[in-house]
Amino acid sequence: MTIQGYTVAVVGATGAVGQQMVKYLEEREFPVKELRPLASKRSAGGTISFKGQEVTIQEATPEAFEGVEIALFSAGGNVSKVLAPEAVKRGAVVIDNSSAFRMDPQVPLIVPEVNADKIKEHQGIIANPNCSTIQMVVALKPLLDRYGIERIIVSTYQAVSGAGWKAAIALEEQSKAVLNGEEVTPSVLPVGKLDKHYQIAFNVIPQIDVGQENGYTFEEMKMVNETKKILGDDSIGVTATCVRVPVVRGHSESVYVELKSEYDLEEVRQLLSEAPGVVVQDDIQEQVYPMPLQATDRMETFIGRLRRDLTHPRGLNMWVVSDNLLKGAATNAVQIAEALIDQDR
Amino acid sequence: MTIQGYTVAVVGATGAVGQQMVKYLEEREFPVKELRPLASKRSAGGTISFKGQEVTIQEATPEAFEGVEIALFSAGGNVSKVLAPEAVKRGAVVIDNSSAFRMDPQVPLIVPEVNADKIKEHQGIIANPNCSTIQMVVALKPLLDRYGIERIIVSTYQAVSGAGWKAAIALEEQSKAVLNGEEVTPSVLPVGKLDKHYQIAFNVIPQIDVGQENGYTFEEMKMVNETKKILGDDSIGVTATCVRVPVVRGHSESVYVELKSEYDLEEVRQLLSEAPGVVVQDDIQEQVYPMPLQATDRMETFIGRLRRDLTHPRGLNMWVVSDNLLKGAATNAVQIAEALIDQDR
Repeated sequence: MTIQGYTVAVVGATGAVGQQMVKYLEEREFPVKELRPLASKRSAGGTISFKGQEVTIQEATPEAFEGVEIALFSAGGNVSKVLAPEAVKRGAVVIDNSSAFRMDPQVPLIVPEVNADKIKEHQGIIANPNCSTIQMVVALKPLLDRYGIERIIVSTYQAVSGAGWKAAIALEEQSKAVLNGEEVTPSVLPVGKLDKHYQIAFNVIPQIDVGQENGYTFEEMKMVNETKKILGDDSIGVTATCVRVPVVRGHSESVYVELKSEYDLEEVRQLLSEAPGVVVQDDIQEQVYPMPLQATDRMETFIGRLRRDLTHPRGLNMWVVSDNLLKGAATNAVQIAEALIDQDR
Repeated sequence: MTIQGYTVAVVGATGAVGQQMVKYLEEREFPVKELRPLASKRSAGGTISFKGQEVTIQEATPEAFEGVEIALFSAGGNVSKVLAPEAVKRGAVVIDNSSAFRMDPQVPLIVPEVNADKIKEHQGIIANPNCSTIQMVVALKPLLDRYGIERIIVSTYQAVSGAGWKAAIALEEQSKAVLNGEEVTPSVLPVGKLDKHYQIAFNVIPQIDVGQENGYTFEEMKMVNETKKILGDDSIGVTATCVRVPVVRGHSESVYVELKSEYDLEEVRQLLSEAPGVVVQDDIQEQVYPMPLQATDRMETFIGRLRRDLTHPRGLNMWVVSDNLLKGAATNAVQIAEALIDQDR
């Protein structure tokens, strides 16, 4: 790799996250020598704009990775499983936004503010965590370092764009239909490939991703398992309830954390204020707290509603909001790439 | 009181809850000899329909309670504080839906499925709990009786109608504006009388009712204090995060409960299935769980997503949904009235 720039592929460049990746590479002035947008055969031949130029989208095939140094994948687990090894074989480092490799012990699972030191252990693939996990661990890391964490009980309020543009369009169309008194025929959420679909407009759906035998959804188990892996501590208890709400962008989380030692609330506020990537917005009496609308298009993680559990000396409540397409996906992936090239220098 | 029927006043008869009270008195065939709808001077002179007749709305004054035997109040705490004692003075039993008297040790706070036995302790006023509390205690009571409860950690997803029709209209108007690409000027939520108002359409607001010095909102403290009072156990730890979501009717709650003894999940499901006022909808693999749209206009409390905390042997997650205007307010108030006249017989 050279400092004049890298050949960067974005796989799934036309998707909700892929578009943000391209935009973010440009905004952050990531050293791109050549951008290679890749997508399905259907989208190939079209163009996307990058730094004022129209760049042609190519079909994502094994050969398309020839000469690619960094490949950002966001086209679903199946595409990653097939093509990420092909990209690695051709010399690329893959940063993968799907769940395909996240729990593979050979693959570092990275949130740069939390565990950038693990990047160097990669063997070609680095995994980008689940959106709802990323913002939570950014908020928890300073508390883990200072107090230790016994357990986490989290309930999420997740935006529809986490399920792709299709879901965002469905929310808009359903909302229009309801407001016009027309029938709604849901076809996307909670999970496109499952049998039953429910209205998300003016509703909430307590299912994200498929259900498992143990009663949890796959999304909930991602939060459990990925949190432990990223924080590097298998002893932390994590239990999650993941819920879809009629919001376009911005995941919110009600996070209850039981620390290992007693804490001072002012110190917690201070620690979080100083933490990388965090903005504290916390004053209920002045009506200051994070909300998804305000977090949209921002790359930070916003934290508010900090307060102690009045009935448990080590219990802390907080409210964590971040743009699921940015810090929850595209921003984090590009930050991994940045940390990667920093470490290589 | 006679079995031929009672003179029943509904104070706040034109409000979101008051309308449901009148509707529900009719549907349940509550023995009403005379319905006396009361409201502000502004609404007086209008009519509401009851059992096929148009009944004239009177201004809520102390004298309006002459001859009233049961008075259902749902016109806010200030109206209750002034007029409930006047109604009692004139011989009525007041069932009050405001927060004015709930924590008064002289006033029973009743959810009939849970603590109907306390009704007889009333001294003229019986309080109807907060909407978000009612559905939670209905779900918890069978678990308390069987296993004991150590602590409760709850995050809510509350519908806008909990803040009255104004908030429901605001959600509709804001949603239309957003979909038409127009500017939104919020003026109702989170709390009408506070300085700052936020958009609820396609957003979530982590504030319900006013903020307090301890970092909690008044709504959150209602859940803490009322739950202990209704369950009759001050040792139960309760901590709450109350959040408004863009839903018209139906509050949802992610309830984490740490029981006092270990439990069998199948037994929990069975206990809840047999509990009064409860419908269990619980099969994530078949995509069966409660949602606010499906709970609208239903008077039961719906419970699903039952699953054990995989990292704590006494930890249980559940998802509790109910129509905030019905079981959360009007239905519970009328059920209290029914229990009252049953006990008087």
